[in-house]
Amino acid sequence: MRILGIDPGLNTTGYGVLEIVNRRVRLVEAGVVRGKTKGSLTARVREIHDGVSDVIASLKPQALALEKIYAHYDRPTTAILMGHARGVIVLAAAQAGIDVHDYAATQVKKALTDNGRAPKSQMQLAVQRELRLSTLPEPADVADALAIALCHVYSSTASAGGLRLDVVVTPTVAPRPRA
Amino acid sequence: MRILGIDPGLNTTGYGVLEIVNRRVRLVEAGVVRGKTKGSLTARVREIHDGVSDVIASLKPQALALEKIYAHYDRPTTAILMGHARGVIVLAAAQAGIDVHDYAATQVKKALTDNGRAPKSQMQLAVQRELRLSTLPEPADVADALAIALCHVYSSTASAGGLRLDVVVTPTVAPRPRA
Repeated sequence: MRILGIDPGLNTTGYGVLEIVNRRVRLVEAGVVRGKTKGSLTARVREIHDGVSDVIASLKPQALALEKIYAHYDRPTTAILMGHARGVIVLAAAQAGIDVHDYAATQVKKALTDNGRAPKSQMQLAVQRELRLSTLPEPADVADALAIALCHVYSSTASAGGLRLDVVVTPTVAPRPRA
Repeated sequence: MRILGIDPGLNTTGYGVLEIVNRRVRLVEAGVVRGKTKGSLTARVREIHDGVSDVIASLKPQALALEKIYAHYDRPTTAILMGHARGVIVLAAAQAGIDVHDYAATQVKKALTDNGRAPKSQMQLAVQRELRLSTLPEPADVADALAIALCHVYSSTASAGGLRLDVVVTPTVAPRPRA
């Protein structure tokens, strides 16, 4: 079972793929899909769609986990642009026939730190600890993508007797940029 | 030269295709791409992408015209959802290799009525008059899509000596639902 977690953004979209084998979770690959900062919105949504479709085709996850839509009352334009990125990401999942699951930000924080209001730094440390990474995942978009993937792993394995915490990390598949 | 105007929405996406031949503008086809109201967000973005891709493939426009992104301070969630629809629509244009042009709502109103603050009813009448339609285009999403397409026609032909106003309408291609 492989889970793809994504943190959508027009400039940088973080992704992380986790694998569950024998109730152990393993980091398969994580990285970012970057839009060309000089590109038009049209060019960027295409890069994001192509990048995410490529991740799905090469790593073959069975599910996509995303944060629930969050209404940014203070930054409406950012929210609309984020909506463009999120739209083409869920389209890529639909086209590949994989399920899309979404979790509220508070659910993700609660699942990883037991605190629904955990600050970003605590979340990053939790991701590092849970996946036994030697360093904090960089950039922050990658940590966010791994956090949402872990949240889905915990949610979907909780009802199946839980998950062993002896995480196995394959160092050769450490976070790397993509596209 | 064919122009596709689109009014994006997750439930109803209006579209209209205009053709310019010998400095005359003609309505080729207009209608709506409807999402299944019971469908998930994922299913809906796919329906919109497929519907718009289908319109582009069958009617072969050379350009897509859309309203500029507008920050809805009062309805941020609606704006994010609209962003999802807009994202997969511009993706469809990028994949078909057609140019995307966007116009502010005030530009569209000004182009059609000479009043940047024209009310919706005045805009609908302007579209009906300009395209010599026997009835108001229905639903309103179709009128909005035709208005943005007309705005692009006027903007792109203004520098080429203007457009004749003797519009030719082919009655067999009246607005019809699609998908």
